[in-house]
Amino acid sequence: MKITPISGFPELPPADRIVEQHVLDVLRETFELHGFPSIETRAVEPVERLLGKGGDADKEIYAVSRLAADEGEVVDAELGLHFDLTVPFARYVLENAGKLAFPFRRYQIQKVWRGERPQEGRYREFTQADIDVVDIGELAPHFEAEMPLVMAEVFRRLPIGRMTIQVNNRKIPEGFYRGIGIDDVGGTLRIVDKLDKIGPDAVKGLLVDAGLSPEQAEQCLALAAIRAGDLSFVEQVRALGVEHPTLDEGLDALAAVVRAGMENAPGAMVADLRIARGLDYYTGTVYETQLVGHESWGSFCSGGRYDALASDGRTTYPGVGISLGVSRLVGLLVGHGLLRASRSTPACVLVAVNNEEERGTSTRVATELRGRGIACEVAPKAAKFGKQIRYAERRGIPFVWFTGAGEAGGDQVKDIRSGEQVDASGSSWAPPPEDLRPRVIGADGERG
Amino acid sequence: MKITPISGFPELPPADRIVEQHVLDVLRETFELHGFPSIETRAVEPVERLLGKGGDADKEIYAVSRLAADEGEVVDAELGLHFDLTVPFARYVLENAGKLAFPFRRYQIQKVWRGERPQEGRYREFTQADIDVVDIGELAPHFEAEMPLVMAEVFRRLPIGRMTIQVNNRKIPEGFYRGIGIDDVGGTLRIVDKLDKIGPDAVKGLLVDAGLSPEQAEQCLALAAIRAGDLSFVEQVRALGVEHPTLDEGLDALAAVVRAGMENAPGAMVADLRIARGLDYYTGTVYETQLVGHESWGSFCSGGRYDALASDGRTTYPGVGISLGVSRLVGLLVGHGLLRASRSTPACVLVAVNNEEERGTSTRVATELRGRGIACEVAPKAAKFGKQIRYAERRGIPFVWFTGAGEAGGDQVKDIRSGEQVDASGSSWAPPPEDLRPRVIGADGERG
Repeated sequence: MKITPISGFPELPPADRIVEQHVLDVLRETFELHGFPSIETRAVEPVERLLGKGGDADKEIYAVSRLAADEGEVVDAELGLHFDLTVPFARYVLENAGKLAFPFRRYQIQKVWRGERPQEGRYREFTQADIDVVDIGELAPHFEAEMPLVMAEVFRRLPIGRMTIQVNNRKIPEGFYRGIGIDDVGGTLRIVDKLDKIGPDAVKGLLVDAGLSPEQAEQCLALAAIRAGDLSFVEQVRALGVEHPTLDEGLDALAAVVRAGMENAPGAMVADLRIARGLDYYTGTVYETQLVGHESWGSFCSGGRYDALASDGRTTYPGVGISLGVSRLVGLLVGHGLLRASRSTPACVLVAVNNEEERGTSTRVATELRGRGIACEVAPKAAKFGKQIRYAERRGIPFVWFTGAGEAGGDQVKDIRSGEQVDASGSSWAPPPEDLRPRVIGADGERG
Repeated sequence: MKITPISGFPELPPADRIVEQHVLDVLRETFELHGFPSIETRAVEPVERLLGKGGDADKEIYAVSRLAADEGEVVDAELGLHFDLTVPFARYVLENAGKLAFPFRRYQIQKVWRGERPQEGRYREFTQADIDVVDIGELAPHFEAEMPLVMAEVFRRLPIGRMTIQVNNRKIPEGFYRGIGIDDVGGTLRIVDKLDKIGPDAVKGLLVDAGLSPEQAEQCLALAAIRAGDLSFVEQVRALGVEHPTLDEGLDALAAVVRAGMENAPGAMVADLRIARGLDYYTGTVYETQLVGHESWGSFCSGGRYDALASDGRTTYPGVGISLGVSRLVGLLVGHGLLRASRSTPACVLVAVNNEEERGTSTRVATELRGRGIACEVAPKAAKFGKQIRYAERRGIPFVWFTGAGEAGGDQVKDIRSGEQVDASGSSWAPPPEDLRPRVIGADGERG
């Protein structure tokens, strides 16, 4: 049977997996420092739920069925693999509402699947990392400021370039559009959302085609052009001379988010009034995130506030969340040489074996080192030492340990990069701290 | 749309997920200390590969297909969700053979799916943790001793009862059976494997039905009854008076594994000559693992040596591996009250909010504590302090922080279990080490 990779289902080699593990560790550590517990939801949901009300997501869904159901067996509801972590989380909240303490916060780091045609940086199987807070009936606005602060801390802890979290509030364009007499807010947003792709002239044309006056279209473009790392965006909007109570609400809410950013994560957040997010269910703050210098890679981390994350007909659960595309981020950074691991194995030491009869001696040293937190491997074969050293070299293991190689029959350890070999004891020797674990290194040598 | 759980797809509540995370952390840490790098394989494989040569696994496989493939689109090879991590690993080794350094070791912790009818402790979606070593052409026998030593260390690091790893070598029954004139080794093994389920009398009956003489059947049962935590099993087998070169090989190999166990993990391993493992591809050492006192729960951790883990027709890759059923272990231990988390959130401190205007003050304290590795949450609402304390209580957060509550306007922190409230500063206060993170606690109060 011929073996070929399956398009859109990437598998990382061990060294790149170490980079991914580091990113996942930083995500988990940061989320937990902010008091988010972890949950995982099952990989499958009823197809009916995945399709949602609109039913227009069907192209992306992978259906799942037992290959050989027993004859006459009652088949379960049709199942599909989840394509994001929001739909399953909304279902989880409804299913467990009686047991959860609200406001309920959680993080969720899992694989998701989309049956899309694969393209550069887009996979059919990939890992997402989401945080959300959900409450019953009402959700306090300060949570909308908290989400991007958590992600800003994640980015600060990673040896990558500067990430800019762009924030907007859906009420700003809504109020602004209504203030200049535009009724079709959704349709106008969808056209303005094409700005990055087709540019302002084409957007203006589409807006006029959709029935706006040239002046209205100009005003929409003027609003979308506003971008500021501080509160000056409020004055810039005011200068456009539009008045509407929803616009006021949106400006106040966005100012609160940007102010929290300035105080707690200076430089990480930018008010960008062009950000709309395609999804219709966002009702307040929305987020997108770009890597500075690589804006063409698009957004790695997005989300927003929804008044009805979930609803069971009687109770509505508003929520706010933000989601990082882990596989896409790691794939692009590793693929472009912007992140790499210092070695492809956790092992810091290879304990050489003098001859197979003395393997037990080497194993005892390894056990001693492991007991002190030093990862090591015992050489697979009592080959010539040169061969054992090359085994370590191929994997990037920095140290090789020789039992009984010292003058008084003690052990020695060799740094195979410098060639330096010194007396050492399994009960006391330790590697330099930077060699203990594989390091994850950024483009400029920055270390994670 | 009605929400009902899907049978066989369990979802852990946050506190139980903390237990699972702890088990996964110990697995990863131990595997990495032993020099295993991590890989993950895609969730899907071609159905043809999952079915294997026999094609008898079809009942267990979940097929995956795009819900709405474009008309006229060439459909990919039929895909299914992997049901274990061995079949994907064998494919991974063949696919990447040119890039891997052999002997290649890896650990793999991932979800797998089986379309079986669910029953107690058996799921349709569950997590497995596997380690394997694979080489080209030949695999050194010492790896067969290493696998159970790694798992024994995992069990030692978990606050659970004693796990016994039962080891056998397929060459022992094979050589023994041949030595007493039995030709159908596989058939005999399959019958003897039913000992636990149907008992020795029924097994003897089946063996005689299969054409063995009553004396041969008795000998098979006598071999299967041998069990020893030391090398005495060799003498016990010898006492049965059977001679065969394959039997000698098997006894030598098993003695080496048991000896390594006695030296490096006293009490963890038992030679148990009844263990056969149903799967036909094991050719050397085989492993099973039971929790002492809960033998009826069956094996949590099994595996063995295969001469042909993978083969591309020209090259054969022998391997040895062992696999832990994480979901089953956690599900049973948590379900029976033998493992629990000390709280349901990572947060150690809830920073109370005096009034919404002072939320920024509370956030600054939280940032200070997080910078020192102390997980905390800022109260969601500036409610009465009693209500904020109850919010912490419901989640098991042990400390509540009050800004400006001290005599000189400094902060105070209250241990809400004892009620003790003391002056504290965000730049220096630390919780007792046992409160810093959620603890995982065994039945006897043993702590992980």
